[in-house]
Amino acid sequence: MSDPTGGHRLQRLRIEDLADVARGAAVLGTGGGGDPHIGELLARSAVRRHGPVELTALAELPDDAVVLPVAMMGAPTVMVEKLPSTEQVGRAVEVLTRHLGLHVTHIACDEAGGVNSLIPVVAAAELGLPLVDADGMGRAFPELQMTLPTLYGIKGSPMSIVDEKGNAGIFETIDNTWAERLARTATVEMGCSAMISNYAMSGAEARRSLVPGTLSLAAAIGRTITAAKGSDDPVTPVVDHLGGRLLFTGKVVDVARRTTTGFARGEARLEGTAEFAGSTLLVRFQNENLVAELDGELVATVPDLISTLDLASGEAVTTETLRFGHRVAVIASPCDPRWRSDAGLALAGPRVFGYDVEPVLIDLTAGVPA
Amino acid sequence: MSDPTGGHRLQRLRIEDLADVARGAAVLGTGGGGDPHIGELLARSAVRRHGPVELTALAELPDDAVVLPVAMMGAPTVMVEKLPSTEQVGRAVEVLTRHLGLHVTHIACDEAGGVNSLIPVVAAAELGLPLVDADGMGRAFPELQMTLPTLYGIKGSPMSIVDEKGNAGIFETIDNTWAERLARTATVEMGCSAMISNYAMSGAEARRSLVPGTLSLAAAIGRTITAAKGSDDPVTPVVDHLGGRLLFTGKVVDVARRTTTGFARGEARLEGTAEFAGSTLLVRFQNENLVAELDGELVATVPDLISTLDLASGEAVTTETLRFGHRVAVIASPCDPRWRSDAGLALAGPRVFGYDVEPVLIDLTAGVPA
Repeated sequence: MSDPTGGHRLQRLRIEDLADVARGAAVLGTGGGGDPHIGELLARSAVRRHGPVELTALAELPDDAVVLPVAMMGAPTVMVEKLPSTEQVGRAVEVLTRHLGLHVTHIACDEAGGVNSLIPVVAAAELGLPLVDADGMGRAFPELQMTLPTLYGIKGSPMSIVDEKGNAGIFETIDNTWAERLARTATVEMGCSAMISNYAMSGAEARRSLVPGTLSLAAAIGRTITAAKGSDDPVTPVVDHLGGRLLFTGKVVDVARRTTTGFARGEARLEGTAEFAGSTLLVRFQNENLVAELDGELVATVPDLISTLDLASGEAVTTETLRFGHRVAVIASPCDPRWRSDAGLALAGPRVFGYDVEPVLIDLTAGVPA
Repeated sequence: MSDPTGGHRLQRLRIEDLADVARGAAVLGTGGGGDPHIGELLARSAVRRHGPVELTALAELPDDAVVLPVAMMGAPTVMVEKLPSTEQVGRAVEVLTRHLGLHVTHIACDEAGGVNSLIPVVAAAELGLPLVDADGMGRAFPELQMTLPTLYGIKGSPMSIVDEKGNAGIFETIDNTWAERLARTATVEMGCSAMISNYAMSGAEARRSLVPGTLSLAAAIGRTITAAKGSDDPVTPVVDHLGGRLLFTGKVVDVARRTTTGFARGEARLEGTAEFAGSTLLVRFQNENLVAELDGELVATVPDLISTLDLASGEAVTTETLRFGHRVAVIASPCDPRWRSDAGLALAGPRVFGYDVEPVLIDLTAGVPA
């Protein structure tokens, strides 16, 4: 994974880039992040109205830039039924900047994945601001304190939260976990989905804490999927692109899913096909896929990325669209290495999600000549 | 009830007034509003440090005064275990004024009753501001949209909410019921009690919408209770003072109480004594007493005040201190007449609390010569 964008740093996002970004973001969304097509629709509408969105490479951000991420919060199962408006996205930013009295220079992504790679495109287009080609996780995670900026001591509050009805809230919390708690209960009361803006930071803080190039990466993954369409094996090119590995191919035989405390929680059970015939894979999720067990043995866990791809098209499948009979590949790919630190695992390792196990992560040293 | 304060409009609240205000406020609190002694302790501490609090008569408020109410939100059952700090009270005001960019001239009471008659005393003392001798209900109600200002179209938001840990929130909502919904869920997450400031209004709006003289009234009721201490019948003077009527005297035989969705909900069953021997009174409450049924027949409902007084001392008994064997009188007294309008009943009549009955209210025309 020397340069996962394949040397294609995007300078701007045009209408014709958005489908690929959505496709790639869905893979990085690891089953969560919401239906990427909803994000794509919103972003297309905003870019059509306001023109292409300029991308700023993370390394090029000036120290004194004022960077404001924006995201959707809630259960993806609900997001698909309660489409946000482009105005709602802009309002999340506007409520926070008015409260902070800040002049924002750049929009950014809290997470890479699904809707939340594209909501910031909408905000940037609506507000006429450049978008930082980066994000706060390098993947999607279900809770808002689970970001690399948290590891760097950057505050997730003050944060804004707005619903589609016109209600708005601002939280100033003692830590990022309290920001998650208060915003989550507000999200549930607002109808299980809301728009948020948080982690306002300087350009210097963004350069230190964000994951560079994730929008370019999403577009590159999307192009890989598009290029492999119709081939016998559209999955292997994605696995290779991510430096990941194939965990399983199989057929969904059971999906248990419930929307509770503002999350889509559950598990999917797959019966193996091809080389995995006779085996069973269990994938457990909380919005995002968290752990994968092959015949009862852990084969991948957070913070690595566990993504489910449609076997025929190579497209990512989100947890809320998994169906009985769906033929899929499950792949693992390496997270940003900072997540593998003790502090990173304490923030988003398997134990945080209630799995009392050691993390099972892809060996990044494999293949290095001795 | 020509002048329920007995002609004693207080000019200021001194340390020595606070016990009487607490005693009287507990009666107006109709079982809710929290333990008045907690409010008294906090107010004593603040007044001892900062000196007496000036009271401004409602009629004397200038049009362009900037009036800010402050209150405690949550289940009284929790408030008695999680004592707020005087700093927390000031911070609720500070968070909101900073957000609004307003220079506040007067503090006010959202409700008359228990802790919430005394929390504004703390705020006024801490901030060195005069306190308006008035409140937004003329009694206590469990939900924050249930105020006369709501009837006058005054917005309950932007509102602030702060906890004892240092977390703060601000809500800007489309109506006062949404302010209640979002603040209630935040209160629950904050541990079932929080400090709020809301209903920022001009002097002109305050004069139109608030109930005049409720702090003086509370002090006068408190003095009445104090004066009747040791008499054979300390209850009748309170009933007479309020222009109310005695509903029942009896012994508590059952109290069902649970803290749920941020409220103390339940019911108390009383067996009659003296003239009520052989009868049963049932009082149902949600923080405040809502309806009273004598042998299955409704004898009083919101928006009138249903208060429970200790038979021996005449002191009000809050719902969270009702105990088996407690000998009490239950009295009804008339609410501010604006609550009897169609709009008032639609906001805080019995149907709002789930009782599909016509309100049973004290006849204000009784005794008027034909």
